[in-house]
Amino acid sequence: MTKLSTININDPVFNPQKYIVGERTSSSLNTNEINCFLESTPKDQKLTHDLIDQITTDPILKCDSKYYEQEKLQEREITARKIKRLSLYMENDIKTMQKHYKDTDLIKSLQLDPTSKQLTNSDLNIFDKRLSLIAMMDPQLSTRVGVHLGLFGNCIKGNGTDQQIRYWLQERGAIFLKQIYGCFAMTELGHGSNVAALQTTAMYDLSTDTFQINTPNLTATKWWIGGAAHSATHAVVYARLIVKGKDHGVKTFIVPLRDVSNFQLLPGIIIGDIGKKMGRDGIDNGWIQFKNVVIPREYMLSRFIKVVPSPNGDDVTVKSQPQLDQVSGYSALLSGRVNMVMDSFRFGSKFATIATRYAVGRQQFVQVNDVEKGKSKGSLVKQKEETQLIDYSLHQHRVLPQLAIAYLISPAAHRLMNTYYETLNELYQVSTSGSKKDEDNKAFKNVSDKLKNLFISSASLKATNTWLVANLIDELRQCCGGHGYSQYNAFGKGYNDWVVQCTWEGDNNILSLTSAKSILKKFVDSATKGKFNEELDSADFDYLDPEFIRKVYTNEVEATLDDDDLETYIEIWGVALVQFLVHIGKTIQRTKDFDQITKLLVTVSKFHAIHSMLKSYYEKLSNDDTSYVKDQPSKDALWNVFKLFSVYFIDKYSGEFQQFKILKPNQISSLIQTKLNALLKLVRKDCIALTDAFELPDSVLNSPIGYFDGDIYHNYFNTVTGNNPAEKEEPGKPPYSEVLTDMLSRDFEFDSRLGGSSNRATLEKLGK
Amino acid sequence: MTKLSTININDPVFNPQKYIVGERTSSSLNTNEINCFLESTPKDQKLTHDLIDQITTDPILKCDSKYYEQEKLQEREITARKIKRLSLYMENDIKTMQKHYKDTDLIKSLQLDPTSKQLTNSDLNIFDKRLSLIAMMDPQLSTRVGVHLGLFGNCIKGNGTDQQIRYWLQERGAIFLKQIYGCFAMTELGHGSNVAALQTTAMYDLSTDTFQINTPNLTATKWWIGGAAHSATHAVVYARLIVKGKDHGVKTFIVPLRDVSNFQLLPGIIIGDIGKKMGRDGIDNGWIQFKNVVIPREYMLSRFIKVVPSPNGDDVTVKSQPQLDQVSGYSALLSGRVNMVMDSFRFGSKFATIATRYAVGRQQFVQVNDVEKGKSKGSLVKQKEETQLIDYSLHQHRVLPQLAIAYLISPAAHRLMNTYYETLNELYQVSTSGSKKDEDNKAFKNVSDKLKNLFISSASLKATNTWLVANLIDELRQCCGGHGYSQYNAFGKGYNDWVVQCTWEGDNNILSLTSAKSILKKFVDSATKGKFNEELDSADFDYLDPEFIRKVYTNEVEATLDDDDLETYIEIWGVALVQFLVHIGKTIQRTKDFDQITKLLVTVSKFHAIHSMLKSYYEKLSNDDTSYVKDQPSKDALWNVFKLFSVYFIDKYSGEFQQFKILKPNQISSLIQTKLNALLKLVRKDCIALTDAFELPDSVLNSPIGYFDGDIYHNYFNTVTGNNPAEKEEPGKPPYSEVLTDMLSRDFEFDSRLGGSSNRATLEKLGK
Repeated sequence: MTKLSTININDPVFNPQKYIVGERTSSSLNTNEINCFLESTPKDQKLTHDLIDQITTDPILKCDSKYYEQEKLQEREITARKIKRLSLYMENDIKTMQKHYKDTDLIKSLQLDPTSKQLTNSDLNIFDKRLSLIAMMDPQLSTRVGVHLGLFGNCIKGNGTDQQIRYWLQERGAIFLKQIYGCFAMTELGHGSNVAALQTTAMYDLSTDTFQINTPNLTATKWWIGGAAHSATHAVVYARLIVKGKDHGVKTFIVPLRDVSNFQLLPGIIIGDIGKKMGRDGIDNGWIQFKNVVIPREYMLSRFIKVVPSPNGDDVTVKSQPQLDQVSGYSALLSGRVNMVMDSFRFGSKFATIATRYAVGRQQFVQVNDVEKGKSKGSLVKQKEETQLIDYSLHQHRVLPQLAIAYLISPAAHRLMNTYYETLNELYQVSTSGSKKDEDNKAFKNVSDKLKNLFISSASLKATNTWLVANLIDELRQCCGGHGYSQYNAFGKGYNDWVVQCTWEGDNNILSLTSAKSILKKFVDSATKGKFNEELDSADFDYLDPEFIRKVYTNEVEATLDDDDLETYIEIWGVALVQFLVHIGKTIQRTKDFDQITKLLVTVSKFHAIHSMLKSYYEKLSNDDTSYVKDQPSKDALWNVFKLFSVYFIDKYSGEFQQFKILKPNQISSLIQTKLNALLKLVRKDCIALTDAFELPDSVLNSPIGYFDGDIYHNYFNTVTGNNPAEKEEPGKPPYSEVLTDMLSRDFEFDSRLGGSSNRATLEKLGK
Repeated sequence: MTKLSTININDPVFNPQKYIVGERTSSSLNTNEINCFLESTPKDQKLTHDLIDQITTDPILKCDSKYYEQEKLQEREITARKIKRLSLYMENDIKTMQKHYKDTDLIKSLQLDPTSKQLTNSDLNIFDKRLSLIAMMDPQLSTRVGVHLGLFGNCIKGNGTDQQIRYWLQERGAIFLKQIYGCFAMTELGHGSNVAALQTTAMYDLSTDTFQINTPNLTATKWWIGGAAHSATHAVVYARLIVKGKDHGVKTFIVPLRDVSNFQLLPGIIIGDIGKKMGRDGIDNGWIQFKNVVIPREYMLSRFIKVVPSPNGDDVTVKSQPQLDQVSGYSALLSGRVNMVMDSFRFGSKFATIATRYAVGRQQFVQVNDVEKGKSKGSLVKQKEETQLIDYSLHQHRVLPQLAIAYLISPAAHRLMNTYYETLNELYQVSTSGSKKDEDNKAFKNVSDKLKNLFISSASLKATNTWLVANLIDELRQCCGGHGYSQYNAFGKGYNDWVVQCTWEGDNNILSLTSAKSILKKFVDSATKGKFNEELDSADFDYLDPEFIRKVYTNEVEATLDDDDLETYIEIWGVALVQFLVHIGKTIQRTKDFDQITKLLVTVSKFHAIHSMLKSYYEKLSNDDTSYVKDQPSKDALWNVFKLFSVYFIDKYSGEFQQFKILKPNQISSLIQTKLNALLKLVRKDCIALTDAFELPDSVLNSPIGYFDGDIYHNYFNTVTGNNPAEKEEPGKPPYSEVLTDMLSRDFEFDSRLGGSSNRATLEKLGK
């Protein structure tokens, strides 16, 4: 059945491309401007497209539907081959950033010449962005490299001295994916979130001036370590520093694991494969145990803590800078969290594109209202075409808020990424200046406060958005009916790969609690002591301004949604946050039971994220210099998305909005739900243009029901048959058909197979 | 690292079995009585345990952790071998039900002797229960058999004449898994939910007295057909009956697909494999196209519609009983829906067991309150043990309501199953009696009404509970942190296998809408015309009693939660339903837009399900003859679970409860959330006993972090290492290590690999 013979292109019932192409053609939105808004700036936009072009056309890196057929070991090997390929791009990207593309000796000199420039995060910007885009298409690849560059590399950057950073990353070549492949040995079988209680030990031996690394018991086994099973030559190991019998807490150590030339394990290293996971089987997660593994003292990362033997070698002291240690010690995880917010935008936009196109192209049933309309025109007979899914109100409720979520994540993700780089650069400068002058103390205080805010925001945004996107994938898969369950349409593997983001690098509930506790503390400081740092806090925490709190408390702020003052769509969340925090404060005062309010705190973190996403989006879009959107219909469409996001979540949290008397019961029906329905109708009109504006090529979507041309059924059918060719000789005959023919053609042999001798005559004889 | 050497059993920090076994020992609950409550009756309880014992010890049927390592084709073949094995159990079970275990000739006579008993659903009761229990452990196996016995078989039973039923199922042997393996060819590429619009045609040819089956275009391709790719010899095909050019709508036809002796496809049958799915890859879903496939006229299932050629063969008429046709035509899907509610109980109980045991055994952090308590006693130092997860209020909020959900599904599932069998038997009797007498008409009306109620309840319970359990698996996986993401702990595959239940055999949103529309119609009939069938409606629809509606409308019913009158925990949902329906009615009157209220209707269906689950549970537990629970502490614990379920969902839907003024905002904080916290603390005390009471052996759980002995870490470690042995020669060295060594040991060869000639000197020459 060839493509041409299978469908009558004049058949009005199933011609999905007609709708999708039609809506695209008739849309007046400027998708290029909208895409620029989503990609932050024209420069970023161009880079995104250039990189996606390379990734999706590179013969080794690209993914097609065969990607869904790979089994565990295949995935592992193919991912390794892709990493090898990426090492070329890495050198290319560093050269480009250094504007030394023509310099043959650049990489050699960066690596071997001690006077060459020390590479910093910003030198890896292009490559980082490349990885971030790969994450949309092949998340296990970006994670497997990300463990090495992000976790291993950032742990060294955050905890190593300048010399250690230069040596391990640049001189040895790790940053170029050479000689060293690192893993991040933090989590243990018995401890994930409670890092301070890890059990692996690093015992200092004065006589040899070395550390002995040991796994004292089963639960101290390093567990889930990405890269450990197959690829890592070195690990940063989180272990308890023990000097002269005293436990100094958990510090970080470089421990070689394998001989880089042949990948044999080194003495005392025991490694196993973690095996099958829910998703991301291309990553070789492993477990590690250490049996008296000896490393030189100098392998401890010592930016903030040093083990210093006395000159004559008969004693040792531990010198530390605990304050800085605490602030920057976990910065390795910070980068991951910031990246996961960007991942949320990318993944969200991918699945929103697929499900929206399917909803526009797919028809099912004739809608009651359409029949009624037909009737009233006396033309019921003409209404032959089934209704597009997207024209059902219920389907709009299911799909379009998810599209809005993808939109609202973008400005927040870009802003968080920028803040992260800025803050880390400042921290680096402060912590290397080394002086103790007053202005440095002030600068230190400043960067320390900034870092704290960054921890709050990244934790709240990471947790909230990875949850939102997990839900988005699930909801949108269901919106695609049975076809969403086909592995070739991306949802299944996408979900399985995605959801680990809710758990790793800070469990979402723990992160939500941590950020909400800090917000609560800020709230108490502001409400009771008037403490509020205008400069630092006005961006994300403006609702904690003492004046605002007072106004909410005295009901001087009215929670409304005013289309002439769109800031009200943000402010209502500020009011909700304050009322929520007041309620929590009162509850603690009354019950003295902190544990009882933890469920409420998780919601505070979600509200904070929603508030800050609305704010980032508003600030970007309301400023012509930053929005890059000049076209008025496009701007209007973007504002509709903004409003939809706010109203959708108010409806979703209508319990809290009523409980804390931000809205009255009748306002939920008359204001919120009315607005929600109206906004859905508006956004529905633009939905094809709004998903096109993500500008994701088919090769990134890798889901035939969501391809650009809208030819849903042919694309899908061809993908299924391309991956499952009928055998030539005996089409449809399974390789194990004798199992089935044996069963189906068996005779009345049940009793004889069960041992025989159970017919009545025999049994009577036996019973006598 | 052997088991003994790895852990110090005196180590207070990680000894999870201490907690689990300790709580078990100190519990006073009678888990056997509770298990009987959950399993319905002592007889059912015994049967459940006997069957589970057989399933989990049968060498072919049992599953262990290797189950998670299987790849698609392996899964397909192993599942086929298990089906072959089950064909033995099938004969065994039929003999047992017939009390003819000793009769060697029973199966032969049932099959070949036309005077032998006609087998009915009740003769398959044991086997059906066997399949239902297998579904907990190996859902793809039960589905792959279920498509044949349930969908194919029930379609014939629902639409075939007595002779057709006997011939295809009994005489040909299908019911014994012999000679015929059936598939259910309903869904097409272009149509799932809208069955009436299917496009496959069955054209009657008067000259040959046959039907010609055709796939007119691509979207008419039968799609997702379970069993089609590899196993089916026959299909029931849903196709448009076309006689003399007139389209009589979609009817059902038996179409042979493969030669049973060698599994070759028959002429005109084109079949392909659907390929990889999100889960259940052990089922061979396929697609089918028909090219002028000719079948005898007699292969049409003709209980309610007949194509009758005139005696001289020169004309033909179509005779139908449209009323009965409509009522029973889709009964094939009904059975699946009823079974999925039972599946929800089983799957829910499995994951609730795993996550509860993990939450009791796992410790992380020292709880603030515990530190405070320690401090106040001056014994902070003694507080060395980390807090069990289950002792965090937030974790109780996450885990224990899920446990309550599993409990509340059970009585509703058993009641639905009983109603289903009763109603189908009645229908069978009415539809075979054939007379047109008055009492028969009355009986027909009665069974037709019963069937309608069954459609409403099964749709609402199927949709609501499959959603609840999808969410339960996801939430509980997250509660197990990283270890929940390991495939060996059951959540990943469990989720992937589960979620298709939300889509197939009636998409959850469509089913919710259908049931809620019927409820709305009943409500309007009751409220405006006082129509209410006391006998039929009082069980599930008591809130639609005109007197109750009046009282709610005039505010004579106060929504409270009174611990001295536990029916109030049900009644509050009745009040909510009525208020909701009133709101919907008013909205339709005002807007005339039916489509706009569909989102609300989905919630109505959920509320109906919650209400009917509470009611089934209450009725069973409050009657000593049906609860089988005599032990007072056990009874109290079961009532706490009941209350928790009601209060948890009121809190979850607090938006609706406030919007429709069933509860005031301050009641949410003061009444609902206070009660919720108190109930969580109560249920927490019994949580190990309550999960033990599901009596699921480790082999059903197949998740080492949830095994009965509570030795979480050893069980898990041993499972991982058992499935991933380190290679003997070169431990830890991956089979593709040359890819990595190539990359890591590369020299400064980037430019030469990129084509060379890019050093400065050459470039200068070239540029001149």
